[in-house]
Parts: sequence; C-alpha cells; structure tokens
Amino acid sequence: MDYQKYTIATLGSHSALQILHGAKAENFNTLLITTPDREKFYKRFSFIDEVKTIPTFADFPTVEKDLKDKNVIIIPHGSFVAYLGVEKNKNMTLAYFGNKAVLDWEQDRDKQKKWLLESKINMPPQYDSIEKAQFPVIVKSFGAAGGAGYFLAKEKQEFENKIKTFKSNKYIIQKYILGVTLYIHYFYSALTNSLEILSMDRRYETNADGLGRIPAIMQQEIDIDPSYVVVGNSPLVLRESMLPEAYDMGERLVASSKKLISDKGLFGPFCLETIITPDMNFYAIEVSARIVAGTNLFTDTSPYSIFHHEKPVSTGRRIAMEIKQAISENKLELILD
Amino acid sequence: MDYQKYTIATLGSHSALQILHGAKAENFNTLLITTPDREKFYKRFSFIDEVKTIPTFADFPTVEKDLKDKNVIIIPHGSFVAYLGVEKNKNMTLAYFGNKAVLDWEQDRDKQKKWLLESKINMPPQYDSIEKAQFPVIVKSFGAAGGAGYFLAKEKQEFENKIKTFKSNKYIIQKYILGVTLYIHYFYSALTNSLEILSMDRRYETNADGLGRIPAIMQQEIDIDPSYVVVGNSPLVLRESMLPEAYDMGERLVASSKKLISDKGLFGPFCLETIITPDMNFYAIEVSARIVAGTNLFTDTSPYSIFHHEKPVSTGRRIAMEIKQAISENKLELILD
Amino acid sequence: MDYQKYTIATLGSHSALQILHGAKAENFNTLLITTPDREKFYKRFSFIDEVKTIPTFADFPTVEKDLKDKNVIIIPHGSFVAYLGVEKNKNMTLAYFGNKAVLDWEQDRDKQKKWLLESKINMPPQYDSIEKAQFPVIVKSFGAAGGAGYFLAKEKQEFENKIKTFKSNKYIIQKYILGVTLYIHYFYSALTNSLEILSMDRRYETNADGLGRIPAIMQQEIDIDPSYVVVGNSPLVLRESMLPEAYDMGERLVASSKKLISDKGLFGPFCLETIITPDMNFYAIEVSARIVAGTNLFTDTSPYSIFHHEKPVSTGRRIAMEIKQAISENKLELILD
Repeated sequence: MDYQKYTIATLGSHSALQILHGAKAENFNTLLITTPDREKFYKRFSFIDEVKTIPTFADFPTVEKDLKDKNVIIIPHGSFVAYLGVEKNKNMTLAYFGNKAVLDWEQDRDKQKKWLLESKINMPPQYDSIEKAQFPVIVKSFGAAGGAGYFLAKEKQEFENKIKTFKSNKYIIQKYILGVTLYIHYFYSALTNSLEILSMDRRYETNADGLGRIPAIMQQEIDIDPSYVVVGNSPLVLRESMLPEAYDMGERLVASSKKLISDKGLFGPFCLETIITPDMNFYAIEVSARIVAGTNLFTDTSPYSIFHHEKPVSTGRRIAMEIKQAISENKLELILD
Repeated sequence: MDYQKYTIATLGSHSALQILHGAKAENFNTLLITTPDREKFYKRFSFIDEVKTIPTFADFPTVEKDLKDKNVIIIPHGSFVAYLGVEKNKNMTLAYFGNKAVLDWEQDRDKQKKWLLESKINMPPQYDSIEKAQFPVIVKSFGAAGGAGYFLAKEKQEFENKIKTFKSNKYIIQKYILGVTLYIHYFYSALTNSLEILSMDRRYETNADGLGRIPAIMQQEIDIDPSYVVVGNSPLVLRESMLPEAYDMGERLVASSKKLISDKGLFGPFCLETIITPDMNFYAIEVSARIVAGTNLFTDTSPYSIFHHEKPVSTGRRIAMEIKQAISENKLELILD
Repeated sequence: MDYQKYTIATLGSHSALQILHGAKAENFNTLLITTPDREKFYKRFSFIDEVKTIPTFADFPTVEKDLKDKNVIIIPHGSFVAYLGVEKNKNMTLAYFGNKAVLDWEQDRDKQKKWLLESKINMPPQYDSIEKAQFPVIVKSFGAAGGAGYFLAKEKQEFENKIKTFKSNKYIIQKYILGVTLYIHYFYSALTNSLEILSMDRRYETNADGLGRIPAIMQQEIDIDPSYVVVGNSPLVLRESMLPEAYDMGERLVASSKKLISDKGLFGPFCLETIITPDMNFYAIEVSARIVAGTNLFTDTSPYSIFHHEKPVSTGRRIAMEIKQAISENKLELILD
C-alpha cells in the first residue's frame, strides 16, 4: 500500500492543524492551502509538508488543477462553506472526503429540522411568527457564521426592538431552552458501518461565558447585551447513563440521512449540538455534518477515543485512518465525493 | 501469576467503561452486567469480554452463583447503592473490592458529619431547624440521587414555600457557602498504606451551569428556578500551594475511618467534594467512598496521575493494578470484602 | 553529555511538581527547596531526588552555597518574587534560568504598559484618576498576590466606598473589559529563536466562578461581593483563526523586550493574560515572564504542545529540554543569568 501517492490537504483555518497532524501520524503527505496573512503561521509546523498560498480563499478553484496532479484528498471543515460557499464546495473536482449531498441539509435550517424530526431527536419549539412564540425566545440567522447571529428576547417588544438592527433578514425564532450545552463529536465509518463517539466539548463564547462572573446587580447597572461569538472550547464528559442515548441519536441521524439525503448518507465526522435540560433530555440545536472545532481540544487522544482505539486518536487522525483503510481495501469510492 | 483466573466485573452504568477499560489494560478478563436497554451500547466496546444481561439491576442476586463460578471480582461504583440499595450490596456473596462497612457511613448524613468532624475537615454549618438558620441556606434530601434533591432559600418564607413540594421529607439544612466547587479524586492503597490524588473535576449541572450565560435582567423576568442535576464533568487543577492540605485531608479521612468504621477503614478510590472559599479554605460537602463519575474525564491519564505513575493510569486502571498486586502478593483478603 | 553533573531545582510551590517531573523526564537530577510544613507533601513524589528544608522561604540565601556545590540550575516560577522579592531574586548567585532584567518589567505596571504598547498589544484603557474614568472600572493593586487585590466599581461613589478599605494604596484604575479570559502559555527558545504556544487555560477564581450558578434574584438579596482569588485552572483551546495573532503577539513581546529590556530580552516560558471581546480582539491584562500555574493542567502533554513536539512535552519538561540542548551545544550562558 503506497500512501506516498496520496496527499491529504485542507484549507488553513478551523481544524487544519489537527487534520494535518493526524494525517502525518498516519504517514500521509500533507498540504495546506491558505492566504498570505496566515502563511507564516502555518509554516511553523513541521508536520505540514507544503503550504500553498492563494490571494484569497475564494481563489481556491484556481489551484485545483495543480492539486489534482498531486493526488490530493481534500478534508472539508467548518470554514469551507464559510469561505467558499456551498456551490464552490459542490463544484470542487478534487477528491473530497465526505458526501457533498449532505451540505444542503446542513445549511438549510428547514431541511435540518426535517432531518432531526425523522431521527426522532427533540428540538426546541420553533415559531413561524413572533405572535405565536412562547418566551423567552432565541432568534438565529440562517447559515453558519461562528455563532455571531443570535439574540435573546424575553417579550415581543424586545424582539421588535432587536430585530430592527439584526444583520440578517432570514432567521428562525425558537423557544429558549434552559439547560446546559453539550457538543457530541461522532465519527461514522462508511467502511465498517459503525459509529464512534470520539469526544465532547462545550463552546467558549464571548461575552456570554464572561457574564456569570459579574454580580447580578452590577450587570443590571452596566446594561449588558449578551453575545455568543465562539472563540474557543472547553472539554466535558457526559454522565455514563446518558451515553447510550448519545450513541443512539448518532445512529438515528445516520440512518435517516440514508433515507432522506442519499444512499451514502452521512459519514465521517459529525457533531450534534445539544442542550440538556434538568429532566436529562437532549434537545438538538444543530447538526454539523463535518469535523467541528471542539475536537481541537483532543488533538492527541480523548476520554472517549481511547474506548475505541488502542493508540491516541484525534478526529483528524481518525479521518486519515479511514482513508488509509479505504486505500488498502480499494474502497476509496465509498468515502470520497 | 495467573490473571486469567480472575474476571473484573461491574454494573453497566456510572464509570463502568473506565473500570473495565482499566482492567483490560492490566490484562484481566472483563465482564459487565447490565439491563436489556443498555446491552447494545456496552457491546460496542471490544475491551469488554462479556456482557451479561439481566431484566433489571435489582435482579443482580440471581446471577451471583454464575459469577462466582467465573471467579469474579466486583468493582462497585456510584450506581450500586442507587440500583441495589445498601442491603443488597452488603449481602453480595461475590468478591467485592472495598470495605462494605463504609457504605453506612457514606449513606447516612449524620455519620458522614461525624466522620468529617473527626477528620478535622470543615463543613458548612448545619441547622436542626430553619428557625436557627443563617441564610442563604441549601436544603438537601438524604441519600444520593445524582444531585437532584437540592434547593436554595434566601429567607424563611422561601424555605417554607419550597419545602411543601420537596420530594423528600428527610433533609438537611446547611448554610450556603459561597465559593467554587472542587472534587478531589483519591486512591488509598491498603497494600502500601499510601495515598495518591489521581485527578480533580467540577460537576456540570443542569440548569445551574447554564444560568450564568443569561444576563441578570433576563433571568429575573423569566423567573428561573435553579436545579442541580449532574449530567457531566469538566477538568480542573488546584493551586499547588493548596495541594498539601488536599493530601492531608485525604489521609485524615483514612485515619479516622480506621478508628470510626473498622480496622480496615476506607481504601481504594474515594472523593472529597469541596467548596473553596475566597480565604482559600476547603469546606467538605460530601465524601464518596468509591470511584466517582468525575474520574471519567481521565480514562487515559491525568495531570496528577502522572506524578505517581510512569504509565497512563486512570482510577479504573489503578483499581486493577491494586488487585493485580494483591494477587501477586497473596493479599487479596486485604482489599476484598 | 553528562547531565548527572547538573541538578534542576526550584522552590516548593506554584508549579514545582511539573518543573521537576519534566526535569526527571529529561534525566536530570532534581532538588526541591521547601519549608517544613510542605516537606512531607513533596516527599511523596519519587521524581524528586532531594527535598531540602529551610525554616522559611526567605532563608533561601542561606543554602545558596550548598546548592552551588551541587551544580544547581534554579527554575524560577510565580512564587519566587512572592516569597523572595525582586531583589533577592536578582542577588541570587546560583545559575538562574531566565533573564533577571525582565523581573522589573514584570513587576512594575508602568513598565508593563510601556512593553505592551511597544508590542502593539491592546490594553484596557487606564486612568490616572477616577475623575477621568469610563465605568465600569476594575481597580488593581500593584504587584502579584495571586489575584486577591482587585475590585469592581460601576460608578464613582462605589469606587470611593471601596477604596477606603482597599489593602493597597498603590493601584491602577482600568476600564472593565467585558469578554472572556484566555491565558496563553508561550515558550521562546533563545537557542533556536523560535516561539511555541504550549497550552492555554482560564483561571478558576473564588468566588467569581461560583456566582453564575446562583440565580440573579438570589444574588441581589444576599448582597454578594465578588472576589477573584485564583485557586485553580481549567483547560481551553482557541479558535484556530485567532491562533496566528496569538503567535504574533508572543513574537512582538519578545522582539520589543530585546529593544526595551536588554539584548537577551524575554526567553523561556511566559504568559499573556488576555480578555477576548465579542469583536474577537485580544486585550492584554498582564504579561507573566515565567512559567504560570495554568500549565499545571498539562503536565503530560497538551492540545498545542503536540503540534511542536513528537513526545509528550509540558512547559516544565520544555524548560529541561532547553537546558539539555544548551549543555550539549555549550551555550548555557545564553539561557542562564
């Protein structure tokens, strides 16, 4: 089996270090495509064999031909859609790890809702109009954008005031579910048809995660507006008695993706972003159908990864292991698009 | 030394994955007893040699004879008392890792109080009646139950209102100590008479750990009632200058257990659940005389475990190491009950 | 290369376990100097070859002669200045890892400000007098002291009330920046002139990190005063798109230290203590020009350390690796003072 023939590549952002570090651990060639401002940064790391610089991420198609000659396999992450948009992802002619048909279902909140419903996963109640809402509500813009497009409203008047200056005119209104957040990092193998939970995290959001350190009385007098911009992640483990349902939810998402999206369905890394309520129920906020940034906490191993693997395995490395197995079994067509 | 003769077994919940993963790392046979709804889940993990399914956990005594023939050593965890009750634990005829005499002292809050006092460990002031209380108070039901049986009251009237609908009529009233929580995971070896701190955590409780992300003004208008249901854990380390006292508290607990409980006293894994106040004092909330769920963060190694061991050691693996040593030194009677 | 000739030593506090554990991993002799109350504690750990006890940390100079005979290299940490003061550090005649000239710039807030400005790192606006302040403000005493010397004020009157009982009469007034904290642990090699980010954390402060779990309405009625006493740390990773700036800030600090402080400038471990605002900007609160306690989370490895090293490397071990390289290249004079 000649891995030297293949180069694992990704865009310089999000979880690129983890992906290429994992690829190198599995002895692949590694290549990173980035913009001039980040070139110096990525060149610090010796596990990246080649850094290719393009003027802007939108120029990605101009290097496709060159990358094709290098037998590149592209690993998409959260910045691919943010930087290239769904269409440029779909039109990519390079070997692409994952099922591009899932992209539409990840991006479109109505499709997500249908997918989660079909998977029998609870969601916060959602309202067509503010008139029908139960308060408090959280209002979210459509599309990714790293968590900036949110606001809370405790009554209709507050909603009306805030919506005027909201940056998006495509949004959804959900009941605000009071609980704690948990992001579950899955990996589903299309080669063995088996599911692993590799790790878990919670997001670290500014300024939301700083508010609690300010006494209530001071908060009120300084008139704070909460924001939910994701700037990091912190690790968590889940109560073991809730793990069976966590695995089941992942399997139901995969099963319904095969029914709703395409035969191949969802595979590789994905994430279910949940809120856990005091009755110990999970409510899904979102499905991310690719590696998520919370896995960056576990670039070596994780409390869950070691239950599935005898060596240190990150999500990035797990992707490389899957590709390696597909190469050796001559099944690359099962995992590339 | 023939480990093949022994099988390490536990109930399918709480920290079972860690316990059996650690046992397998030390080359023991592993067996899990669980209920039908969790059978599929535990069969995912190859380090579990056998999954034995019983209709309900209460049916455990029906399989004891069979387990005895397999030379099983049972590792108890937090779900043993929750599912079987203290009596069924005591009446178990299988080899049981730990000292069953400690169970009464763990379950009975009055005995816990006596034990902590004898160990010269601070506790929050406790009140016989609400008339004598200094507010705010926290009211806790007797027994385990995963942290659900709590409420806060800032004055007598609030206590009177909340106690009416409280699910338990056996409870204690404590002064609410304002600080931060820290759970210290100890292991005391009855073979070497030495203490290790293996790791530390804080609990992740719904909805208490979500409250701080909601601005004070919104909290007030949506009329939030806090709850403290433990659904996970997150990692911590302690300021090094406070570590000597953390070790000393553990040794004092062991020493006083030998005096108060029985000659063998407390050994194996245990946990002191503390609040640290701004004057850097520890207040003990509870002693858990067995492996706690927070150790599930450290199924590989931990920032403290590596100070005692040259290989990756979880609390689960540490238990297996102790059993292995006892077997090789012919001292199993020192650690089994 | 004969490491047996050298002994790595430090004072028994702060990050001593990590430092000596890392030194032993690199095969150095290890020695710890501590006070009688901590002697038993440090003797628990077999990677510490010798524990030397002195009546108080201030008696350190009395053992210098003896240590010199043992060919000791001293690794300073946060407790060195706290226990010995800047002058005793500067007057130390033992081989001292680091640049003592940096101590003045770490201790003096005006010099820190100059250093950060020169490094083009944002700082919270600072006010000469309360008359000119934009509220809310945070008031900080000069010097270290583990985070105890702080208070918040939302208006002038509150400032006037609190300053009366403030323990320090040397303080600074800063605008309180609303965001989330992130502590970045750097290591700059004076041998290779290259920078590594080894890990990141946030502090765990009592009672500030407990406040958020108390509902706003209860906080108000029990009249809470926040405090910021550091008793631990919890792990974090940063959004990858912000990592390039995190590295750049570190390099700018090193570059300006060579200009402002001395030719050697800042090298070895250091930390930038930041607040990240919702516009994803870093604001520096402080530079610590030595190993910080947050690295104690990563005594084995860290999510960032593995991007620079193929083996498990803590900050403590990284220091030992640097010393080892300097010995083998005959360049100890580059890293000792």
